[in-house]
Parts: sequence; structure tokens; C-alpha cells
Amino acid sequence: MRNLAKVMYKPMRQQRDDETPEDVFYFVDFQRHNAEIASFHLDRILDFRRVPPVAGRQLNITGEVLHVTHNEDLRSVFFTSPANNTCFFAKCLYMCKTEYAVCGSPNHLEGSMSAYLPSLSMAPRVSIPNPWTRSYTFTGRQEWEDNPFYCDTVKQQPPYNSGNRLLNIIDMSIFDFLTGNMDRHHYEIFSNFGDEGFLLHLDNARGFGKHSHDEMSILAPLTQCCIIKRSTLLRLQLLAQSAFSLSDVMRESLQSDPLHPILTEPHISALDRRLHKVLSAVQQCVRRLGEDEVITNDFIKPTRYPRWKFDEAP
Amino acid sequence: MRNLAKVMYKPMRQQRDDETPEDVFYFVDFQRHNAEIASFHLDRILDFRRVPPVAGRQLNITGEVLHVTHNEDLRSVFFTSPANNTCFFAKCLYMCKTEYAVCGSPNHLEGSMSAYLPSLSMAPRVSIPNPWTRSYTFTGRQEWEDNPFYCDTVKQQPPYNSGNRLLNIIDMSIFDFLTGNMDRHHYEIFSNFGDEGFLLHLDNARGFGKHSHDEMSILAPLTQCCIIKRSTLLRLQLLAQSAFSLSDVMRESLQSDPLHPILTEPHISALDRRLHKVLSAVQQCVRRLGEDEVITNDFIKPTRYPRWKFDEAP
Repeated sequence: MRNLAKVMYKPMRQQRDDETPEDVFYFVDFQRHNAEIASFHLDRILDFRRVPPVAGRQLNITGEVLHVTHNEDLRSVFFTSPANNTCFFAKCLYMCKTEYAVCGSPNHLEGSMSAYLPSLSMAPRVSIPNPWTRSYTFTGRQEWEDNPFYCDTVKQQPPYNSGNRLLNIIDMSIFDFLTGNMDRHHYEIFSNFGDEGFLLHLDNARGFGKHSHDEMSILAPLTQCCIIKRSTLLRLQLLAQSAFSLSDVMRESLQSDPLHPILTEPHISALDRRLHKVLSAVQQCVRRLGEDEVITNDFIKPTRYPRWKFDEAP
Repeated sequence: MRNLAKVMYKPMRQQRDDETPEDVFYFVDFQRHNAEIASFHLDRILDFRRVPPVAGRQLNITGEVLHVTHNEDLRSVFFTSPANNTCFFAKCLYMCKTEYAVCGSPNHLEGSMSAYLPSLSMAPRVSIPNPWTRSYTFTGRQEWEDNPFYCDTVKQQPPYNSGNRLLNIIDMSIFDFLTGNMDRHHYEIFSNFGDEGFLLHLDNARGFGKHSHDEMSILAPLTQCCIIKRSTLLRLQLLAQSAFSLSDVMRESLQSDPLHPILTEPHISALDRRLHKVLSAVQQCVRRLGEDEVITNDFIKPTRYPRWKFDEAP
């Protein structure tokens, strides 16, 4: 936290065993610090490596933030609660009323710390609407929700008509389906790598809201396009083996975080159940279209290599 | 609900056994429909009779509201939740984002129905800041919170320097202390009766938030002014007798409501505990100042009699 590194901090707002109420829309759901942490681990286990590092941390918000900041705006959001705990609220465009304040106990507060990406001037990136975005309204629907041939349209449009982009979107939908994150309205890529840039899996805080429900619509890119990278499929098949199950690997990986346990057991075991649903979806595609149509080699090598090779292993 | 009567509807937002989290300020606490109902009953039992009638009711928000209204604004706040329940959100100045939506199950929703007061043109009324109002900010404090002689100042100012007004404020603070309602920033009176109008105990939805805590500061008007109406004291003493205890009378009274049980047992028994604290506060005043100073006859008869005599019995 000194002057050396900059992190994005998301405080704890919800207990580990709280489930998102069934009437709550994805876009008004809480952001969960533990979902950020767990998503980082999952992304690494899936070998996507597109989530910047995230770790949990107990913060003394009085000693480590309020008393050391010289930023008046930051100081002004701090207050003491009726129970004498130190609290603060966020100042932002949406959803930042006092009801969204978070409080320490009395000063200590759990949170997730995500590594900041290089500044936009150093490493410019663009935010691109997800073709399978949802309608962020109570009543609206998107074309993909009603048109089973939606992918045919997407496939014809750049940048989805060549290279890895569509396959990367499908990877992302598998990742989001496993965490239950419905809140993927945009994705980001570093613009220096042109259309070959990998997708950043940023902002995963609305995953892991319900362990008892598998939101199949998140898989629409896979089920509608019926293609998947061979490397992704092999990894998923590996993690579906009982000797090397996704839940076991996740459990072990999450133990390294200072705030472990990060996920409750029902959330961890939901990963295995969902993984099997992904593999079933692939199987159905194969049955319908044949393996050659569905399981694609990871196409094209990047035309320009980045200095740091963030992108996926073969 | 037809065309004959107009009511104020407050929907259920919280389960009966939820307690207000300890970090939540009174002014961002939920409004509780059952607190409205219980406060009406309590007010009647205390013989204040200053809360307009309130009753609980199960409403079919689809059949009885959405499908019968011709008001486009009202229709526009309805939507269907992810769990297929009918929901609506309020349109208002404060705290009316989608997070505050309430949902039926799937159409049925509990709520409190308060009788509407006559229109302001028929029965004009004024809203007057409570001298013991709280600071509606995270850090501010009001003079009464730090100055034990605050009442001396209030007593010298009209309308508190004559008539029943100050005694009525003290009645109200006893009422609010019993329910635990800290959200009494204003009070209303019908202006036709001049300074002799009785106080309306409107908007009691933030009472009954915590059964395990007695917020002594609500009693400040009583403890700082050390006066109380004889009629009020006699009533409180009556209800402190074990044969006629406040909790028993409340329990019996609340059973008549269609939504009973209205309060959980811990909330009902808290009434007895708090009643004894009120009586102790009076006793301390008497010990310090003598009975003649503290227990006042209900002063002055109203100079102009209203056509309907709403005001307190002798």
C-alpha cells in the first residue's frame, strides 16, 4: 500500500454464506470482495490468466486509510456509525447513497485488493460491448435471448469473423457461467495488440451470488455458436476428473489467501456441477455438428508479439 | 380501496425478526409496515389517540393495483423479478433506486394501510421542527445532545412557553422511546386549532427496529424538562401493573390485525422494560424537584373547541 503499488480495493459488504435474494437483478446485486478473489484463482486454474492478481486483506481503515490520507475528498466520506465503528461510503455515479456505506469492526475491514493495470497512457485499452450483454433494465430483452441463430449474425461481423475473438468470448462465458456472473456488459482489451489482444476478465465481483442456481443463459455464446478452443476443452476435461476435480483445486488454491476461507463449500462444489454442464453443452454441439466443427484449434498466432506475453498458453 | 377511501400504503420490506443492523443510522433504516401498525395500537393504548388508524392487509399487487390503475406513472414502476415475482419501486426524492424495489410472492404483498388525513385545503396543518430533532448527517450533533439545560431555552420560546405544547412533545417522546423511533424530525398539527392543536404522531415506520436496545436519548425531552402530564403518568402507571401490563394489552390488541402476529415477542416484552425506564426517569425528576414541579395537571382547555374533539381525554 505504500507509494509503490496502486490497488483497487473492494470492501466486504456481505457475509460468505449470504445468497443473493431471488428477486434481485444482476445489475443491482452487491459486489462481493470474495468473488473477486475466487475469480482470480479460478481464472488461473482454467489457465486463462486474464484476471489481474487479486488478494484478500484485512485493512485497518482508520490507521491505514483515514489517518494517513491527505486527500480531503477521501476523508470526507468517513464517519462513525451508531455502534462506534468507522465507516465510509463511496462517491460515484451510481448506487452511492449512505445505505451503501461499509463499516469496520471497529476499524478492521476485509477487502479484496486487485493489482492496478498500467495507466491508459502507458498501455491503452478499449472497452467493447459484449455481444451477449444483457438489457440493464427491468423489462428489456436483448436479441440473443430470443433469437437462437444470433451467433450467425455475430460471426459475420468484425472482429468476430476472424482470429480468436469469438473463441475468447466463449472462454469468458464459460468462466462467467462457472462463477454465476451475469454482469458482463463490456470486455476490455489492450489496444496495442490490435484485434489479437486477449480479453481482460475484469470486474468479477458479481459472481458467486447463488450456489444453488446455475444460470444457463450465461453459456449462450457457447450453446449458440457451438465452438470452443481445444485447449480450453482439454483443460475443462482435466478438471472434470475426480482425481483432479475443479473443486479440489480451487479449495487448495484459495487456502493461500489471507482471508481464507474465501468461498463456502456449496459455492465450491457448485463449480463441479457447472463444469459438467459446460461439458454437456459441448457434447450436445458435437453430437449435432461433429467434432471438427465444434472443437477448434486455437487459430491464429498473434501477428505482433507483445513485449510481455500475457496471452494464453497453447 | 375502491373510490371511497384513500389510504397510505407501506409495503413489507423486512421480516418480523430482522433487527436493524447496529451500524445503520436512524435516517437510513428501513421503514417497517408492522411498526406503523403496532404504533397505532400503542398510541391508542396509551390513550394519546394521535395516530390515524392503520391496519395490515395482504394486497394482490397485480390484481388490485397494476391491472386496475389507469395511472401511467404508477404502471411504469412495476416489473417482473428474475424469480418471476411482481415488483415495484417507488418514485420519490430520496432513496428510490431499484435496490428499494419490493416484490410480491408472486403477487401477494403485506403492507400497512394508514387512513389518509383530510386534504390540506379542508383541514390545513403545519409541520413544525421537533426541538429535539437529530442531525440528519453522519457527524453533526444538535444542541440538546450536549447541553443539559437545553429545555430552559425551549421553555422560554413560543409556542412552548404556554399551553400544552411542551407537554405534548414530552408525550410524543415517551411514545417514541417505547417504540424506539429516533426519526422524529418534525411533528404536525392542524392549524385550525391554533396553538392548542394536538400533535399528530405521523410516520412511525422506523420504530421497532431493535428490541434489545433502549435508546435513552429519545427520552431527552422528559429527562431534560422534568415535566409530565398527570393523565399520561397515571396511564403509564396503570400499564406498569402486572395485572394490566403494557405487553399483555399490546399483544391482545395486535391480535385483531389481519397480519398478526405484528411484533415478535422480544419487541413486545421490550415495551414493559422501556415503560419502567420512563417511570424511573419521572421518579428521578420527582426526587430532584418535587412532585408539584414535575407532575403537571393537563393545563389549559383549548380556547376554541374543534367540531370533532380529537384531543386527549382528561
